Amino acid sequence: MSSGALQQTGVEQDQRIPTMYHIPVCPFSQRLEILLSLKGLEDRVGFHVVDITKPRPNWLLEKTRGTTALPALETEDGQILKESMVILHYLEDLFPEPAVAQRDPYRRAVEGMMCAMEGNFVAQGYRYVMNQDVNRRDDFRRGMLEQYARLNDFLLEHNPSGTYLFEDFGLAETVFTPFFMRFWFLEYYEDFDLPETDGYARVRRWRDACLAHPTVRQVTQEQVVKLYYDYARGAGNGALLPGRAYSSFVFEPGWKSRPWPPKDKYGHDATDVELGLAQ
Amino acid sequence: MSSGALQQTGVEQDQRIPTMYHIPVCPFSQRLEILLSLKGLEDRVGFHVVDITKPRPNWLLEKTRGTTALPALETEDGQILKESMVILHYLEDLFPEPAVAQRDPYRRAVEGMMCAMEGNFVAQGYRYVMNQDVNRRDDFRRGMLEQYARLNDFLLEHNPSGTYLFEDFGLAETVFTPFFMRFWFLEYYEDFDLPETDGYARVRRWRDACLAHPTVRQVTQEQVVKLYYDYARGAGNGALLPGRAYSSFVFEPGWKSRPWPPKDKYGHDATDVELGLAQ
Repeated sequence: MSSGALQQTGVEQDQRIPTMYHIPVCPFSQRLEILLSLKGLEDRVGFHVVDITKPRPNWLLEKTRGTTALPALETEDGQILKESMVILHYLEDLFPEPAVAQRDPYRRAVEGMMCAMEGNFVAQGYRYVMNQDVNRRDDFRRGMLEQYARLNDFLLEHNPSGTYLFEDFGLAETVFTPFFMRFWFLEYYEDFDLPETDGYARVRRWRDACLAHPTVRQVTQEQVVKLYYDYARGAGNGALLPGRAYSSFVFEPGWKSRPWPPKDKYGHDATDVELGLAQ
Repeated sequence: MSSGALQQTGVEQDQRIPTMYHIPVCPFSQRLEILLSLKGLEDRVGFHVVDITKPRPNWLLEKTRGTTALPALETEDGQILKESMVILHYLEDLFPEPAVAQRDPYRRAVEGMMCAMEGNFVAQGYRYVMNQDVNRRDDFRRGMLEQYARLNDFLLEHNPSGTYLFEDFGLAETVFTPFFMRFWFLEYYEDFDLPETDGYARVRRWRDACLAHPTVRQVTQEQVVKLYYDYARGAGNGALLPGRAYSSFVFEPGWKSRPWPPKDKYGHDATDVELGLAQ
């Protein structure tokens, strides 16, 4: 077992609370923040942002046994946990009240089936924003709508007249909301939105209520659009685009001081200067 | 909500117990059988095999709202649950004693991380057996070994000197064992096995103990090899190969009466007669 709690961590905080290591604006990490916010326990877990535009620091690689995937949670005892769904359930077990996840076996299973749909939903949204072939835009749009249609059908099956999957904003909402927020990059860079038709009415009601919930204010649309510019140009995870010296994920200069990036992702290559990353 | 419990089901059994609908020799369904066997509750769930060489019957499509993915569990109340991991947790909740899954939050998380590795492990094994390009055999072998190496590393991190992930055969073993058994098709059709080296010693000890466990006797090596011949020739899910009138997944003639298929999957196309499927 690791002795991480005793090592130099680079983090100046009480190591007796669990600590999340995550990349900036990380949607998987935001799930944990929402869960804690729903429980009123935001101060029970520390959050440490790792700069993805630089190689992982050695102290972090020692904790994760060499893997670079984030987020990772360091427990109070210095153990490392990975996978946001695993960490969500861990925190729900550790701080059971108030419950965010369902407790009844059948309801837990319904919640589990909906959470199992997040992988394809997330992958489709990221493939869509990263697409660079203007001729494939319609295919990606159709694929994204198909994902929303599946969620619509699931909600109609299990709670046709409600707003959330069950009575309140719960685990399924905690899992999906960070991606409804990230997918603001599809609105901005792809002019994507749900059609105003019956086929998406149930999932639209769900999504809009999720986005309006008071526990989900960790990121803004402006922040997502500015930080994910490089994704919209096909470069993920802090990778550098040709001709650029800075990633849109750099910490400095902060996103608030930068201009909005050009909306036409299939147009010209915006420079560091144009993006407010250099003078 | 569905009214499946009241509908014509085609299944002659007591509808007041949960019923699993699954394809023959289905590894995902075997997980459930192992779980129930560990609890001594094999008779608490009905198992109904669906013939994948024929279109899904209407009564089943009504239950699943048109989706064809199996397994699906019909609960005592006629609700439909999908996803084997969801169903495993549902049955663990429904029949909590004796516990198969871990209960302590940290141990549950470790178990969850290992279960989260099954997707890539399973996908690699199926891609490998279905590969038809003899020049890519080494790539697939390397990819498969990489998957085993990850499991080896995980077991070394969390229980270096033990046999199972924890003290006993538990949820992680229930999840992986059906695929250790299906991957007998790699031994037979690809001459694949784990090298006798230290780098795989921990996962080999785990796998061998899993395969020897008294609760996992639902399928045999002979059965897997004979039924999955078509997979080894690139045709999955009961699809028909060119020149063939019968899938290797047909119910009749039963696998016991058929000869062993040719081991060289890159060689000639075995006929229905040669496979014992027709006279």
